[in-house]
Amino acid sequence: MSLITVGTMAFDAIETPFGKVNKIVGGSALYAAYAASYFVKPVQQISIIGYDFPDEELESLQQRGVQLEGVEKVADKKSFFWKGLYHQDMNTRDTLITDLNVLEDFDPRVPDNYQGAAFLMLGNLMPKLQISVIEQLKQKPRLIVLDTMNFWMETAMPDLEAVLKKVDLLMVNDSEARELTQQYSLIKAAKKIREMGPKYLIIKKGENGALLFHGDKVFFAPAFPLEEVFDPTGAGDTFAGGFIGYLAKSGDISFENMKKAIIAGSAMASFCVEKFGNTRLKELAKEELNDRIQLFRELTSFETGLDL
Amino acid sequence: MSLITVGTMAFDAIETPFGKVNKIVGGSALYAAYAASYFVKPVQQISIIGYDFPDEELESLQQRGVQLEGVEKVADKKSFFWKGLYHQDMNTRDTLITDLNVLEDFDPRVPDNYQGAAFLMLGNLMPKLQISVIEQLKQKPRLIVLDTMNFWMETAMPDLEAVLKKVDLLMVNDSEARELTQQYSLIKAAKKIREMGPKYLIIKKGENGALLFHGDKVFFAPAFPLEEVFDPTGAGDTFAGGFIGYLAKSGDISFENMKKAIIAGSAMASFCVEKFGNTRLKELAKEELNDRIQLFRELTSFETGLDL
Repeated sequence: MSLITVGTMAFDAIETPFGKVNKIVGGSALYAAYAASYFVKPVQQISIIGYDFPDEELESLQQRGVQLEGVEKVADKKSFFWKGLYHQDMNTRDTLITDLNVLEDFDPRVPDNYQGAAFLMLGNLMPKLQISVIEQLKQKPRLIVLDTMNFWMETAMPDLEAVLKKVDLLMVNDSEARELTQQYSLIKAAKKIREMGPKYLIIKKGENGALLFHGDKVFFAPAFPLEEVFDPTGAGDTFAGGFIGYLAKSGDISFENMKKAIIAGSAMASFCVEKFGNTRLKELAKEELNDRIQLFRELTSFETGLDL
Repeated sequence: MSLITVGTMAFDAIETPFGKVNKIVGGSALYAAYAASYFVKPVQQISIIGYDFPDEELESLQQRGVQLEGVEKVADKKSFFWKGLYHQDMNTRDTLITDLNVLEDFDPRVPDNYQGAAFLMLGNLMPKLQISVIEQLKQKPRLIVLDTMNFWMETAMPDLEAVLKKVDLLMVNDSEARELTQQYSLIKAAKKIREMGPKYLIIKKGENGALLFHGDKVFFAPAFPLEEVFDPTGAGDTFAGGFIGYLAKSGDISFENMKKAIIAGSAMASFCVEKFGNTRLKELAKEELNDRIQLFRELTSFETGLDL
């Protein structure tokens, strides 16, 4: 089933304890599209780029079945640019530069041939723009997944509350879940968020895995224990793209299938962080992904029947 | 198979965001013995108490099959006392008071009837005392588990290195593993620790679960997602006692059985934190433990065969 991914396509400058790169493509929708395209075609991209965005990157996406009719190219502005510095623990980072550039003018348009998409991934963006995409769709998708961040909680809370009422699944990290609800306990935060709209909730905990909540059910997926996280940039967006891509492939949005989708997304994200930017995602083979999913299973499975 | 547990039996004063208690029994060996006694008898305790330690607590332990020949009672000194204040996040705490009292004189003695024990749990203590217990045993136990803390890394590192060479399994939390090895990556830290002696390693991550390492194998057990952690005191010692108690019951120290033992210990610890001190451990029914272990399985299990 077809999938629309909305978000940024950008340039990043990244410095980690292991190295630095001055200009590499990035952005939430770029990572999500690369990850989702492993599972489903077409991936219908909605984003905005400047005159400087590399053609070969667009071709690489198209070769993977990513449609770009919804990607606006601005002739006289540069692409969105972000520069970040990761600390030793790799879980915290400082944003050094945010040049919005084309993002200042972003008014996402849903092309006619995207209508009827069964899945919608709304990457982190101004909530007003996320609402605009939902409202342009003539037919409600089977599953709308929303990503957001603390910045919008602090600057656009009424809009964020409005979009929360229109989506099926919210994906946030643990500190965002706490900020959104003013609850320290993630279980209490999860209850409160689902009262705000989304029936499903995924709380991402970085190197400590992710939790899926629905009704009274909880599923926990560990992060893969990597010897070294080389560059965490895009891991969350890759997880999101892998998750919704996996669901869109099967069209099955049962809780059981969402568990598998989380494992697929986690495995994909564990590759993303092994090299700078999207380097690893571009070279990833299906066999590698399959092997890692098997390792995920071995990581947490234990024999039934404890002798108490 | 019989099990020796070594550590403190004490009084704690505890303040958490949810309440406070001025005097409740505690100590690493007390929690470990309560937890282990759910699985195996006898549990052979080695500790030291003052004249003020309550008889009814000793009787309660004996009723559970805990032998107390190795618990020295000092007639003219008070029991070890610790006062701690937990922060809002419940993962960090300040130690407000540490009155060593009887602990200043602790020179653990292994009673004759403890000789031949197949399992040994060395709770957090001065490494010299942990070595002394090992050296008093005429027959090497099948499995020696060691707990320690950052304080000994900073004040008694040569002794700690010596005891590490004599044990089979080290159990530390993530910050301790990092401090011990000067490695941020837990996977790298795990390799380095096993080069220091122990063939097995458990890294505890509090609300983020625990990792077991052996050879090239890794197992991850989540912490149970509780709505509220009421009092984390003793959770690590309860985990340790449940883990080694489970192993001692079966006598099986295979990696597969260690996985089950970690789940048993995690389940036990998830009850411990629901009320102050050892309150919840004293009233815990086997049926409750069984149900929670089932929830642990549901928390991480997913169907085989992902469609990639």
